[in-house]
Amino acid sequence: MSEKQFVKEIADINENFTQWYTDVVLKTELVDYGPVKGTMVIRPYGYAIWENIQKDMDRRFKEAGSKNAYFPLLIPMSFFTKEAEHVEGFAPEVAVVTHAGGAKLEEPLAIRPTSETVIGTMYSKWIQSYRDLPVIMNQWCNVMRWEKTTRPFLRTSEFLWQEGHTVHATEEEAMEETIKMLNVYKDFMENTLALPVFTGRKTEKEKFAGAVATFGLEAMMLDGKSLQSGTSHYLGQNFSKAFDIKFLDKDSTLKHGYTTSWGTSTRMIGAIIMAHGDQRGLVLPPKVAPIQVVIVPIAVHKGGVIEKAKELEAMLVKAGIRAETDTRDMSPGWKFNEWEMKGVPVRIEIGPRDIENNQVMVMRRDTLEKTAVSMDNLDKTLEELLEVIQKEMFVKAKERRDKKVVEADTLDGILSGVEAQNFVKAGWCGCRECEDKVKEVASATARVMCDEEGIPEKCAICGKPATHKVIFARAY
Amino acid sequence: MSEKQFVKEIADINENFTQWYTDVVLKTELVDYGPVKGTMVIRPYGYAIWENIQKDMDRRFKEAGSKNAYFPLLIPMSFFTKEAEHVEGFAPEVAVVTHAGGAKLEEPLAIRPTSETVIGTMYSKWIQSYRDLPVIMNQWCNVMRWEKTTRPFLRTSEFLWQEGHTVHATEEEAMEETIKMLNVYKDFMENTLALPVFTGRKTEKEKFAGAVATFGLEAMMLDGKSLQSGTSHYLGQNFSKAFDIKFLDKDSTLKHGYTTSWGTSTRMIGAIIMAHGDQRGLVLPPKVAPIQVVIVPIAVHKGGVIEKAKELEAMLVKAGIRAETDTRDMSPGWKFNEWEMKGVPVRIEIGPRDIENNQVMVMRRDTLEKTAVSMDNLDKTLEELLEVIQKEMFVKAKERRDKKVVEADTLDGILSGVEAQNFVKAGWCGCRECEDKVKEVASATARVMCDEEGIPEKCAICGKPATHKVIFARAY
Repeated sequence: MSEKQFVKEIADINENFTQWYTDVVLKTELVDYGPVKGTMVIRPYGYAIWENIQKDMDRRFKEAGSKNAYFPLLIPMSFFTKEAEHVEGFAPEVAVVTHAGGAKLEEPLAIRPTSETVIGTMYSKWIQSYRDLPVIMNQWCNVMRWEKTTRPFLRTSEFLWQEGHTVHATEEEAMEETIKMLNVYKDFMENTLALPVFTGRKTEKEKFAGAVATFGLEAMMLDGKSLQSGTSHYLGQNFSKAFDIKFLDKDSTLKHGYTTSWGTSTRMIGAIIMAHGDQRGLVLPPKVAPIQVVIVPIAVHKGGVIEKAKELEAMLVKAGIRAETDTRDMSPGWKFNEWEMKGVPVRIEIGPRDIENNQVMVMRRDTLEKTAVSMDNLDKTLEELLEVIQKEMFVKAKERRDKKVVEADTLDGILSGVEAQNFVKAGWCGCRECEDKVKEVASATARVMCDEEGIPEKCAICGKPATHKVIFARAY
Repeated sequence: MSEKQFVKEIADINENFTQWYTDVVLKTELVDYGPVKGTMVIRPYGYAIWENIQKDMDRRFKEAGSKNAYFPLLIPMSFFTKEAEHVEGFAPEVAVVTHAGGAKLEEPLAIRPTSETVIGTMYSKWIQSYRDLPVIMNQWCNVMRWEKTTRPFLRTSEFLWQEGHTVHATEEEAMEETIKMLNVYKDFMENTLALPVFTGRKTEKEKFAGAVATFGLEAMMLDGKSLQSGTSHYLGQNFSKAFDIKFLDKDSTLKHGYTTSWGTSTRMIGAIIMAHGDQRGLVLPPKVAPIQVVIVPIAVHKGGVIEKAKELEAMLVKAGIRAETDTRDMSPGWKFNEWEMKGVPVRIEIGPRDIENNQVMVMRRDTLEKTAVSMDNLDKTLEELLEVIQKEMFVKAKERRDKKVVEADTLDGILSGVEAQNFVKAGWCGCRECEDKVKEVASATARVMCDEEGIPEKCAICGKPATHKVIFARAY
């Protein structure tokens, strides 16, 4: 086979970002399309990223006092109607089981689009006294939301996620939990995914169906669009009243609890791809990369090269680095392309001359810089290098983003801002009409509010006094 | 509140084992019933056992060359009809989605009862050449089988499991994989769950719908019944032909691959409960116990006790032991009952006099033995003790089981054997009629064949020449 056959073409990242994304996710074998429209198969290379995400997040959740549990996939349809806003938000997207075990069911069952209703039902049974509070549980599971337009990781009818659900005795404590988990997410995204995010409260229009307040994490993709990467909801007593979650308080009166929920999903993998990628393909942050270091032996016919490569691999693996040697019967050039496309943070090249000189060539995927490095203490050198890459990827992403955040004080300004692929900060009067106008004129939505930066005098849309400062952007 | 209120009553293990099981799983808060009939909620204490199981198994799978992936929950109903035996076996148990996104679907979709069909479909797309083989993937997920009679962990309409699916170039290699994974399971069950298992091939009647051969792992519960704890299937070319999994072999001819699948589920938690439990409740093997050591401070009003307990806890946690101190405002006696019921392998009692004597009292849950132990090197002492408990629990379970394995050479012998709560080994001619007869007369089924022990001369049922030696038992 000629090498030509192996060149995997990826659409131009600047000219057709959408196609670039599709090419990258398919050609790097992160995902494939499932047989049912709108579903995805997460292939081993993609799933390994998810496993690394899970491991890191799960540790953080447990440190934050959460315990994992598992609640049923199927929820009686009647549960959704108990919270008015919730049913309105989710009923149109639900997949419904009507038959099972060869017979028609008495009541149709929904495949969970989210689990507030079924978890609320169980909490009402388990919680009796203030001594039982707070309850802080999380589950890792699949959910289903029937979508018309789908794209792998970004929007699929089934996806994997985690959903935390908590109950507290007071409003203050529940709000504290909401913000605490928002910050757990933020820290994870910045330090593990190298993804700078804006956090803040969502508008009424954009909040979760049934929440009192939703807080979102918004990351900027390379095309200037925003990707909502996680949300944390303060649910007040909406669900505790709908599902009768009551407790006997210290003062011997029966009270409804205050609940929160918070979630992130496989969508974050889409964010990694679209925030860090380049024309060659993926650029993965070391902390979630399935392979952190790939070793490519050169001129293997000379003998001793593969042995030395394997020796280095063992040394790196021992140091806790996810390292692999590519011994396949392909040319080094083909392998370079392949692993660059797959976003492996560091490539090591080792040939007979390198062995003579007690060195290897080290290539950084993020900067494409190549340097000669001594084989002595290679494990330490690479440990440090991976940390440097992790940090610099965040800095680079943040600098790139910060340059693309502008301010506007007119609707025109918002329009030209988002057309130039920016996030646009602007004053807003707080009314739904103005928010709808931005959507209509600029195809942009209110991502989060950032009132803490200081509220502008006027609403950029209608000119009336502003009550909020909002980040507007086009969004996935 | 009086202590009486906290005494949790558990049915007599000898008189009513079924009720004992239900009491234990509910009162220890391993599970609860979900709102939809036949579903279960796995509560944090139960889910933590599952997490420990997953961690241990997942490591073994990866060492055996498997990679994790995720395939869609929903499978077009038409997929099932492609393999004749498979559809016959699973169609009656399937839950069906007929509506989604507010509209009726063109084709009804099954919630996966197992994923051979959808994974086979993807494999046929991914596999082209012998270079692509073997393919060895596993997924951790939920599955759904609509059951009429359900019991938490043992049989529920939804459960959690892992399913491995592999493709090989030759029959020999696929059969090797089938047996290799059977042995991975066996080693896990014996060393991690302290559960002795019989392994062997299943009869035609008992095999997986669509398999050429199924190998099972059968564990004896305290009531002498068998619990199938895992299965490994050699699928031959049944699924590769049905789903067109073909590869271009080295000899340039197109061939169908040979596939296997293997699975274990949350059912294993039921096995742990029913193989090791006693009148006081759970007895958990240290390797999967959510809490390995619980520290109960005594006479806390004397001061310094809780501090010392916390100090010991920190020391144990640092040594990698899952230790917790129970500082709740309850009496020591209440706590002893509670943690014994919950099956924590080791309890430490520490009071003012213990501190004076630089010692603690250590109670083993499995033997109920209590001894004074020096505080010096308590981490080392307990590390060793946990290992001893793990090993002795296996030995004890194996001795108990081995005493209850008998041989029979008549149908009457099989009947009296299983009525006395034994596993019964007997010769079998290999015909379905004799197998059905055992079911009819003794309510027992062929668990696995153990021909390697030597085949008896005659079939215990019909007296004709035997072709197999079979373990008959009543089963969950």
